[in-house]
Order: sequence, then C-alpha cells, then structure tokens
Amino acid sequence: MSRVHNFSAGPAALPTEVLQRAQAELLDWQGRGISVMEISHRSKEFIAVAEQAEADLRELLAVPSHYRVLFLQGGATQQFAQVPLNLLEDGGQADYIDTGIWSRKAINEAARYGKVHVAASSKACDYHSILKQNDWQLSKNAAYLHYCSNETIGGLQFDWIPDSGEVPLVADMSSDILSRELDVSRFGLIYAGAQKNIGPAGLALVIIREDLLGRARHACPTLLNYQIAADNGSMYNTPPTFSWYLAGLVFDWLKQQGGLSAMQQRNHAKKDLLYQAIDNSAFYHNAVESSARSWMNVPFHLADKRLDQAFLQGAEERGLLGLKGHRAAGGMRASLYNAVSLEAVQALVDWMDEFERGHSQ
Amino acid sequence: MSRVHNFSAGPAALPTEVLQRAQAELLDWQGRGISVMEISHRSKEFIAVAEQAEADLRELLAVPSHYRVLFLQGGATQQFAQVPLNLLEDGGQADYIDTGIWSRKAINEAARYGKVHVAASSKACDYHSILKQNDWQLSKNAAYLHYCSNETIGGLQFDWIPDSGEVPLVADMSSDILSRELDVSRFGLIYAGAQKNIGPAGLALVIIREDLLGRARHACPTLLNYQIAADNGSMYNTPPTFSWYLAGLVFDWLKQQGGLSAMQQRNHAKKDLLYQAIDNSAFYHNAVESSARSWMNVPFHLADKRLDQAFLQGAEERGLLGLKGHRAAGGMRASLYNAVSLEAVQALVDWMDEFERGHSQ
Repeated sequence: MSRVHNFSAGPAALPTEVLQRAQAELLDWQGRGISVMEISHRSKEFIAVAEQAEADLRELLAVPSHYRVLFLQGGATQQFAQVPLNLLEDGGQADYIDTGIWSRKAINEAARYGKVHVAASSKACDYHSILKQNDWQLSKNAAYLHYCSNETIGGLQFDWIPDSGEVPLVADMSSDILSRELDVSRFGLIYAGAQKNIGPAGLALVIIREDLLGRARHACPTLLNYQIAADNGSMYNTPPTFSWYLAGLVFDWLKQQGGLSAMQQRNHAKKDLLYQAIDNSAFYHNAVESSARSWMNVPFHLADKRLDQAFLQGAEERGLLGLKGHRAAGGMRASLYNAVSLEAVQALVDWMDEFERGHSQ
Repeated sequence: MSRVHNFSAGPAALPTEVLQRAQAELLDWQGRGISVMEISHRSKEFIAVAEQAEADLRELLAVPSHYRVLFLQGGATQQFAQVPLNLLEDGGQADYIDTGIWSRKAINEAARYGKVHVAASSKACDYHSILKQNDWQLSKNAAYLHYCSNETIGGLQFDWIPDSGEVPLVADMSSDILSRELDVSRFGLIYAGAQKNIGPAGLALVIIREDLLGRARHACPTLLNYQIAADNGSMYNTPPTFSWYLAGLVFDWLKQQGGLSAMQQRNHAKKDLLYQAIDNSAFYHNAVESSARSWMNVPFHLADKRLDQAFLQGAEERGLLGLKGHRAAGGMRASLYNAVSLEAVQALVDWMDEFERGHSQ
C-alpha cells in the first residue's frame, strides 16, 4: 500500500513515522510482551511516558513554569462547559468573540452558566474577516475573554493575540495549536481537542495558568475540575493512555522536525502555495479577507458547484482524500495540519490546475 | 517476543488477536492508505464501524430495542456525576448501595447534586460480604437505585441482580460487563469504563432505557446530556474513534469465542482454579465471603507480607504481570478479565504453588 494525501479536517492525518512506530510496538511495547494500552496508568513505565510527553510539549511551546498542562477527555466541546464551570462565578460575566461556528458553540454553552457578552462579532461581514481590537466592546469586569484562534469550518484565523489586559485570555486552539510559534505567557488558559495537530480523537489538552486553578463552582463535576486534574497529574481517574502515548510520539516527531519554528515555515509555504493557486484562478474562490485566512483549514468553492462531485471523485482517484467541505459550508476544504506535507499540497494544486483546464473550455 | 500473562486491573489485557488485527491495518485500513484514526467520524466508512460495534454489542448482551447504547468519554468516574445530573431532580433523592471504594466514590459525587440515601452498606463486615436485599432500607420515592456490580479493588461481586421494583436500577459494571450473561431488561441504566472487558481506556459505555432520556437538569453540560448523546448517535462532538473501533474488534472477538455464555463458562473455570488454590493453602488468603467473591478481580494476601516483593519479582520473571494489589488494599490482585486465558491462571497457580513450597520450610 501507499499512504494517501489526507486533507481531513479532523480526525486528521497523523505523521506516518508516528504510526509506524506505534505499529511496530503495538503488541510488544518496550520489549515487555504487552501493549502500552494494557499497562496500568499508575505503573512507573506509563508514568514515564506521560511525563515525557508533557516535558516535550512544554519544550515545544516554551510553556512557563507557572502553567500546568492537563491531559483530559471530552474534546474542545467539553471545554465549552468546563471553562465557565471553572472560571465563571454564578452571576458573573465573560466576554466572548464571535468569529464563526465554533466560537458560537462556546458562547451558547457558556450562556447556560452565566452572562455572556459578545464583545465582537464577524457576523456583519458574513464571517469573512476579524474585527480589529479597537472595534471590540470589552466589558470592564469580565471573568475572562474567550476567542477561537482558528475557525476550522469558516477558515478564519487570528494572526495576532488579543490584548486582554488583566482579564485572563482563554483560547480554543483546537485546530492551530502547535502549527506555529506561540507566546503562551499571553494566555490564562489554552485548550485544544487532540484530533488535528496532537494525536487521535478522545484527548483534550489544557494549558492553564496556576492562579486560575481552584475556582470551580459547586456544580462542576469532580472530573471536570481543573484543580483536581492538576493535583492528580491528570490521573484522577484512568486517562486515555494510548492517546496520551500517541500524543507523546507526535511531540517527539515535532521536535525531530525542528520544532515549531520549522513547522511555522513549512505551514507558511503550504498555505501560500494553496491560496496562490486559488487566487490565480477565476475557477476557484475563497472569500476570507487576506490577513484572516487560516493556515490550517482552507475552504474554497468551485465557480460551478455542479462540478463539485467530479472534482472530489478525481481527487480521490489521485489519492487526495478528505476534501469535501463541511456540511454547513459546502464546497471544498483542505486542512493543512502538520502531518500534511508540502508534496501533498503540491499534488492538490496540480489536480486543481488539471481539473480547471479540463473544465474551462 | 512472546506475549506475557497480564493480570492488570485496568487498563488491562486485550485479546492478542484484536491487537494483531489493529496492528496489521494501523497504517492502511480497509486498503484506503490511511489509518482508521485519520478518517472523519462522519464518513460513511467510520459510521459503518460505529454501527457494527453497536450491533455486535446489542447481540452479545441481547439489548432490548427500547434501550439506547451510547459510546462516551470520561470513564465511569464521569458517570458518577453524569447519572445524577441526568436522573436526579434538584432536591430529589437516590438510593445507593455501598459495597466498597468504587460505590463510595459514586455516592460522594452524587451527594453534590442531591440527597443520597445509603440503603445498605458492607462496612460493618469490613466489605467482605454483600447484605441480602431483605436487609436493605430502600426509600419509597428514590429517583433510582445505584449499585456497583463488581468492586474492582475489594474483589466483591454481586451474583444476583437487585429487585428495584418501579425504581430504575442503575449499575456501574465497569469491571464485569461482558464477562457473563446478563438480563439487561432488569436495568434502567448500565455504565462501564472500557479499560477492562471492552477496549482501551478513554471510552465509556452507557446502556440506557429510553424513558430515562430527556431528564437532564439545566446545569448538566451539553456533552454530558444522555438525550443529546442519543439524538446524535454519540457524535455530538468527535468521539474517540480509535477506541470505538477497537471496542468493535473486541465485540467481534467475543462473538467468535461463542459469546457471553462461553465467556461465562471460561471465567467460571478461571476463578474456580484460582480461589481453590488460595483456599487449599494456609499461605494465601482471601477474606471475601464465598458467594460475593469476584470472578474478575481476585485480591489475596500472603501470610507473611514481607514476602510480597519476592513473590512479585518471581512472578515477573515468569511473565506474570500486573499482580501487585491496589495501593488501598496491599497484597496481590489477579484480574481475570475475558482476555486472560485459563492457561494464564494455571501459570499463576503454578507459581503460587512453587513459591509456597519454597517458603514453607
């Protein structure tokens, strides 16, 4: 078999080298005659895996020492509730920025637990650009300011970090964490579902500044209490050990690739290649304002949507998978996560060119 | 390498055949050139995997059609909160049976959400037996009756199903589900963390009678609402796809083994072999009353605990892993889940005999 080019939005492509290593040791891990899936999370062998994964992640993101890293479950969607359950007092207010479907999901869930003030919305421009911070209406006593750094469906990404002053900044980075360099010290809390740039679905990462621990409201389930998770090394109960192990292999792979500065260069080249192909053609179209275009998720439409099916079928025949747009957006979407190579993007651009020439007469 | 005998309490042994199949197709699933981890949970290919897993589980347990099967995250510990958040009204009361550490964890978490009435406790007999139902003090208007069918740490298991009358019966079956035949129709809700008899850690199974859906209180996070999970086929957000796939392989393996009647026979023979070895010796001891002894988790102590370390070391040298008792109990514990063979138990019994002879002079 040959591995195909996988542009899926998530669960998404994993590095082939990571899967090869997992495969090689799936039944006989560390020569122990068992799988890493079959060993106690409290064994010294697994604890070593867990600690190494955290150490590598801290190194990659240069996480300051007064931040805790948590390996949780439930994906980003659980964080939509977990953030207000932990950081929003009964009757308190939080500021949210609306840039698309995922930030609105976070807004709707938080509204179940307190007052949500939408300080800025991209609705007026049909979610094709992000308002400058000067135009945001931040409230004075917000418990936190929440935004989604990359909207996976709309293909909208912040290329800057909001300035929240003394208010803790909370970011859903599910689909762009680890894709480029990041100043973690600007944030109160960062969360991310794993199934894009971290590992398999079923793992969620939280990076939280220590002073934000210990604020959970009474109704917060024990398992969702950040303080409890931090006090127990993310092992208050049995963690998703195989996913944690795989995330560790991905972190190790990222270090071997040269870390986040190398990934940033590579991802920059990948997105340039694809957006240029789109912009140099009247056949393909992406409506997002240039500075807000996502490096990770590139939605685009064919001029004639009756050709969508033929485009997708030809792509699949060429080993280009996962290009169908989200059901809420239609058209196409190419996700360019870390495990997607420049060669994969070149193959996509070649197919786009070939398809356009075949349908432009 | 040769696979060892793994008596770990969880994450626990998985069937070798299951791991071999997962290994073979880890990079190239269904000849598609991608891993099952790398495909969208909403793709028709993964939906087919998910549906087949549910169908096989329903067949194994003969789940009646008015029950829904949910594939969730967070393990049983999340269910400790999720059950009252969904089934207990504000100010309502639920009955709980206390048979050990895991039922007490469920009790403590439920007490955060309403009145918990402990209708029976094994505390008076130091958790070495289970009170007969005649001696339980059930309340009249309980929202539900909760018990833990098998206490993984204490090694205490119900060999009968409580009669809760009109009150929904809720069971934590994390460590004995699928180990023998079961009449699901006696229950309102069954839940189980996966990492014993189902699959890898990070997946939780819920089987719920349909009339119990739609009762979640307002404070329940959307992701923890059974109704939302049921309405969305357990895909309100991205599920742990690889764990779900592996659980499906385990269910398929169980069917090939002859289903739950065959597992019940095999597990009966395994526990008989081990308990007889313990009871026929003054060197090993298990204090649990005969009818309440767990088939799945067999804790035992050496007469002289100064020999514990030597016993464990010799066991490891013979490829017998995971025998150290839980830190709360000390001594030894052999977990005899479905993937542990009779040959493994025989090897353990042989070592127990050899060790006793070597230390009885």
